[in-house]
Amino acid sequence: MALLAWDQNTYMPSGGHAGRGDQLGTLERIAHGRLVDPEVSRLLDSLEPWAAGEDPDSDESRLVRWVRRDHEKAARVPADLAVAMTREAAAGYAAWLEASETGEFARFRDPLARAVDLRREYAACFPDAAHPYDVLLDDFEPGMTLAEVKPLFDALVGGLAPLIEAAPEVDDVLAGDFPIAAQRALLEDVLHSVGFEDGVWRLDESPHPFALSPGPGDVRLTTRYRTADLGWSLYSGLHEFGHGLYDANHAPALRRTPLHGHASLGVHESQSRLWENVIGRGRPFSAWLLPRLREHLPAAYGGMDHATLYRGLNRVSRTLIRTEADETTYNLHVALRLDLELALLEGRLEAVDLPAAWAEGMDRMLGLEVPSDREGVLQDVHWAAGHFGYFPTYTLGNLIAAQLWEQLRADLPTVDESLERGDFAPVREWLREHVHRHGRKYTQRELLRRATRQELGVDSLLAYLDRKLRDANILA
Amino acid sequence: MALLAWDQNTYMPSGGHAGRGDQLGTLERIAHGRLVDPEVSRLLDSLEPWAAGEDPDSDESRLVRWVRRDHEKAARVPADLAVAMTREAAAGYAAWLEASETGEFARFRDPLARAVDLRREYAACFPDAAHPYDVLLDDFEPGMTLAEVKPLFDALVGGLAPLIEAAPEVDDVLAGDFPIAAQRALLEDVLHSVGFEDGVWRLDESPHPFALSPGPGDVRLTTRYRTADLGWSLYSGLHEFGHGLYDANHAPALRRTPLHGHASLGVHESQSRLWENVIGRGRPFSAWLLPRLREHLPAAYGGMDHATLYRGLNRVSRTLIRTEADETTYNLHVALRLDLELALLEGRLEAVDLPAAWAEGMDRMLGLEVPSDREGVLQDVHWAAGHFGYFPTYTLGNLIAAQLWEQLRADLPTVDESLERGDFAPVREWLREHVHRHGRKYTQRELLRRATRQELGVDSLLAYLDRKLRDANILA
Repeated sequence: MALLAWDQNTYMPSGGHAGRGDQLGTLERIAHGRLVDPEVSRLLDSLEPWAAGEDPDSDESRLVRWVRRDHEKAARVPADLAVAMTREAAAGYAAWLEASETGEFARFRDPLARAVDLRREYAACFPDAAHPYDVLLDDFEPGMTLAEVKPLFDALVGGLAPLIEAAPEVDDVLAGDFPIAAQRALLEDVLHSVGFEDGVWRLDESPHPFALSPGPGDVRLTTRYRTADLGWSLYSGLHEFGHGLYDANHAPALRRTPLHGHASLGVHESQSRLWENVIGRGRPFSAWLLPRLREHLPAAYGGMDHATLYRGLNRVSRTLIRTEADETTYNLHVALRLDLELALLEGRLEAVDLPAAWAEGMDRMLGLEVPSDREGVLQDVHWAAGHFGYFPTYTLGNLIAAQLWEQLRADLPTVDESLERGDFAPVREWLREHVHRHGRKYTQRELLRRATRQELGVDSLLAYLDRKLRDANILA
Repeated sequence: MALLAWDQNTYMPSGGHAGRGDQLGTLERIAHGRLVDPEVSRLLDSLEPWAAGEDPDSDESRLVRWVRRDHEKAARVPADLAVAMTREAAAGYAAWLEASETGEFARFRDPLARAVDLRREYAACFPDAAHPYDVLLDDFEPGMTLAEVKPLFDALVGGLAPLIEAAPEVDDVLAGDFPIAAQRALLEDVLHSVGFEDGVWRLDESPHPFALSPGPGDVRLTTRYRTADLGWSLYSGLHEFGHGLYDANHAPALRRTPLHGHASLGVHESQSRLWENVIGRGRPFSAWLLPRLREHLPAAYGGMDHATLYRGLNRVSRTLIRTEADETTYNLHVALRLDLELALLEGRLEAVDLPAAWAEGMDRMLGLEVPSDREGVLQDVHWAAGHFGYFPTYTLGNLIAAQLWEQLRADLPTVDESLERGDFAPVREWLREHVHRHGRKYTQRELLRRATRQELGVDSLLAYLDRKLRDANILA
């Protein structure tokens, strides 16, 4: 399925879309059929007494626990509902495509309302959940609940406000006129330095950058180029590299088992944001990067000093589009989406009133007027594809990245010197040891406790941002 | 599986090979498991009485017949033997790779002997077969038997001998020094003219050219370029185009059923040889091609006249390598392989004696000395991959192509004028109507009878070659 998805987004002729949907559906049905097979239940019943006597952290014990969880979650959902969700997701995606092309929210309203209804029905299959949202969130961030996530968002929004308030406008050092060939050469140079190996990794182009690994020894990134914006290729490339490195470094012993994968989307996002923002916009990396920018793009960067570059890479700017938001304001975009999807799910907000609620939220959170639905509620595909409970994982990823980085710096006191020299091996090795190799074996919570002895919180991210904005001479 | 194969041969990083083998094995096991499931037998039992009352040529009746055939053939083979054949094929392929790189036949001898043993064991699962070879041949050419194939080869070898004997050496008009970029532009020009449509077809590079369709609306060809030989890209491109056109034009009603596929490898090869040789080296096509050669490769073809080109494209030349053989001598290479694999299977020849038998055969058939095993028995991968009974389908393809062409010319009296104008639609449409759309619905024999009202024979091919070699001024 990973390869079908990669191909669909890179090289598949456009004529292949309908057939590809059928193929993915068939594989999904086969995989789902095996997961809910009563034989799996029987096998688990016979294994659990044995597993109870094993080390609870052994691969085998964990495997039994995860398969039990996956089996029971899938088996609780009637097949008709599962099929309806898949069908509506395809129809909703098509409606969203049309709506976002024409800018007409009205075309998307009814499919969105149906998607919300289906998610309520789905959540109702789990009557023990404290809140219906917990069921949805658990699909992406196993074990997390709204009761944990909501206070984190409230604290984060409160903590970010004064930073954003105080930050002055700073020039965008990644805006300009950059030949695509030079951007490509720069990105390949940077990726090879951080850990992209020929013979294992690929870099291709796609409209929406992504990373995936269709099998061991095979990691694929995509990016895209925009002449006016170097950040589109360079920083999305670093972002996807972080995802790819996580995928590439699960322990070989976990291959071809249900433990081979990611702990959660939040953990996955922590790895991409780490390379994109925490490392990629940090002081040592930007010092290492500057001579490379000068070499590949002398017209734009030949005369730039490091202070200007570092400051510009960390600018704070209130913008309308989540995917183009800077590191500091980004989480406000996510907080808005969490508020709105909760209101939809709880029935406090109807699909028809979503654009007005979006406008109100953007004004309240970022002081921005939303000129069109295309720059508002139609900018993201997630809800169209039925992904409710997905957005918070972006911010969880930022929180996790900041906490991991704090611990990594404590464990590797000379990491700044390494990064400034372009020696990325110590960082890769720390991440492999504490995060990547475990695959799905531990939950996000367990992984974070093991790596940092901390619970998830907002203090590390807020302190990190405050420190960097001062160090970059943006805040006084 | 088609996409996994395409990717493995085009873009997959080399690190992915081991994992890709596992993935293909898993899909094969799932597909095989479904095919041999006793539930399939039960469904067939309940459908057959109904199908007996239907039109025996309806899609539904044919579907029941084909699934019965596939199910019974697969179910007769013990799972252990099927797994052993798959494993030995992978090991044999690896041994062959090593042997063909180093030129040491000794490394390949034991895996080859094991492959022969396994094929004997496989054939023994079908005690009703008149000859063990029939069981193997039937996997590639359903319904054909050695009793039918052997006399065809004998007649063909006898008929080709005087042609080859009489043909003088002619200059190779495709040898020279051709810049890759120009070869690529020429091939794309030619392919777009014959029927390659953007948005449906792709052309990529791979070490061994192939064609496949991973789904509806998605046809993929590969080729490769060699500066010294224009034929490598241009004529392998036309060859693969013929395969791709067959894959692309199965009736939409057959999609996602076991009837969506090819009637036999012989029929598949007939389509590729038709475009590569019958059309591609014919008088009208070569007249159409010449101005394109002049445009893209003026240094080589600027001063060439059509008579020289046409004559050169049809040269007869005794060579060591099957895949580089000309249209006339090609079938002798195949006849040799049929003789040898029969002798291996019947126990008249031991693997260890194969190189000597190869040398003797090449001397007898083509009067050539074999300077090394690399240019002899190690040149083809088929036996290493366990494909015994595969080679004859190449020659069956040539026979079928000649017979189809004879009928097509009778049905379309102005086809030469169309081809010379570059109007390939009538030929494509005739092939779609009589061959492509039927997919696997009819056997090769039925398809040929329906299209030509003839049985398979050698007369059409011999007459066609004789006529063309005279027309091209090679034979007087």
